[in-house]
Amino acid sequence: VADGGWIAVDWGTTNRRAYLLDAGGDVLDSLSDACGVLSVPAGGYPDELEALRERWGARAVVAAGMVGSDRGWIPVAYTEAPADLDGIARATRRVAADAWIVPGVALRRADRVDVMRGEEVQVLGALAGADGDDDALFCQPGTHSKWIRTVGRRIVDFSTSMTGELFALLRAHGILAGMLDGAVADGSAFRAGVDRGASAADLGAALFEVRAAVVLGTLARGDAAARASGVLIGAELGGRDLEGREVALLASGPLAELYAAAIGLRGGAVRPIDSQTAFLDGIRAVRARLA
Amino acid sequence: VADGGWIAVDWGTTNRRAYLLDAGGDVLDSLSDACGVLSVPAGGYPDELEALRERWGARAVVAAGMVGSDRGWIPVAYTEAPADLDGIARATRRVAADAWIVPGVALRRADRVDVMRGEEVQVLGALAGADGDDDALFCQPGTHSKWIRTVGRRIVDFSTSMTGELFALLRAHGILAGMLDGAVADGSAFRAGVDRGASAADLGAALFEVRAAVVLGTLARGDAAARASGVLIGAELGGRDLEGREVALLASGPLAELYAAAIGLRGGAVRPIDSQTAFLDGIRAVRARLA
Repeated sequence: VADGGWIAVDWGTTNRRAYLLDAGGDVLDSLSDACGVLSVPAGGYPDELEALRERWGARAVVAAGMVGSDRGWIPVAYTEAPADLDGIARATRRVAADAWIVPGVALRRADRVDVMRGEEVQVLGALAGADGDDDALFCQPGTHSKWIRTVGRRIVDFSTSMTGELFALLRAHGILAGMLDGAVADGSAFRAGVDRGASAADLGAALFEVRAAVVLGTLARGDAAARASGVLIGAELGGRDLEGREVALLASGPLAELYAAAIGLRGGAVRPIDSQTAFLDGIRAVRARLA
Repeated sequence: VADGGWIAVDWGTTNRRAYLLDAGGDVLDSLSDACGVLSVPAGGYPDELEALRERWGARAVVAAGMVGSDRGWIPVAYTEAPADLDGIARATRRVAADAWIVPGVALRRADRVDVMRGEEVQVLGALAGADGDDDALFCQPGTHSKWIRTVGRRIVDFSTSMTGELFALLRAHGILAGMLDGAVADGSAFRAGVDRGASAADLGAALFEVRAAVVLGTLARGDAAARASGVLIGAELGGRDLEGREVALLASGPLAELYAAAIGLRGGAVRPIDSQTAFLDGIRAVRARLA
């Protein structure tokens, strides 16, 4: 494209954010919608690409996230951990004329395996300006929370916990469903839940206690959702040694507040990171490495 | 009733079992149906009672289980742990002419609370012929698995884990849903799951690993359900010291096999107990104590 501008897309399961960038990488325009991969019909991606180009011109497009999964446009093979920007750029796949999808990262340890698609761009973007020798621990909370350890601008280990999904399932279905419509905010019910969840050998028991406590009147019904959320987040944090540890938190809004409180309770120090800035730094760095 | 016969009902959330007993307590007839409290409309219990009496005569009825909850016929106040047959009989409530509902048991410890409705009858029934001084540990697996400790024919402590409910939620909804339609049986996938779940500080991470392993091809899709079931049952068992411990297992069918295998893996020795026999022994003992 004559002026060198291009389009970056953070294309997740539920949501999509797209950005029009100029040749220097500055954001000229952006959009955010619910057009995640679950709402794009099979075979619908070329049309989505055209729609972006109708809006912003016939520019190069670089996308990351679940768009590269078997639920998305085209499955793009994972790159393997340890993973850095050079490796990710090498495994980025051209899926149409002037359109690329960034790979996810696969972890294959002897004791467990894990996968990510999209978080790698944010984490490596957040590290792009950092001292390359540092150890860092990132947390990106959500439906499937990621804990990502980096050494020297390289993702070396990570773990995914389906904390947000379990909360959504419990809230929508099952025995706790009628009790979890209260607000979820930092407070004594949430903090008691974090303590309980972090020490719970049996998460399923710690969750049932929420119901028993409401039934027996030792927990107000309006506090049940905050307590259950605390139990789940506490269980996610309980097995990690956060005492004195800095956690780079890739989150915004209410979830950022809840995780900041919970990480603080477990002795960690939160460094907030803006997810959009991190994504843009990461995708610019990938684009700069594409041949 | 002239001949002294009566009707006992084990009335749970989803299912119901009713028995016609003669004056000596022998079972003359029984029925088992899906007429649990979730399928009885509000105000529908007198009609259900009439239907039982049309079938078996105008006899006394003693019922136990969720029928005595706020989702059932009439909320019957819990009796408090430690709980024995005498206390349960004293708190059994007459809810209609010649019809009684057995209370559940509430546990109020400083660190946690719990509730049960129905399991107390089976456990105390199973103990009715036992040496009254023994310590015993009962496990009743299911949607909400119960672990119940007794001393001297008295329920002194218990804990409920929503293991079966979590499995059902994961199988029906969410990211694992499409992967969990395989058979769940004892085998290497189940046992590996038990090991992983029992040592998991973060159950939500151990569950996500099932998805990652299928995606990366280190776990066959057909084994995912057995593995996830093992992770959940392992997490239920992991916090309990079962080494060398006898566990009285109140279960039947596939669930009995899975729990027997998992408890064995954790070093426990299973003593199988027939749930129906235990329920009948318990409800007979309660009925004998009613004024």
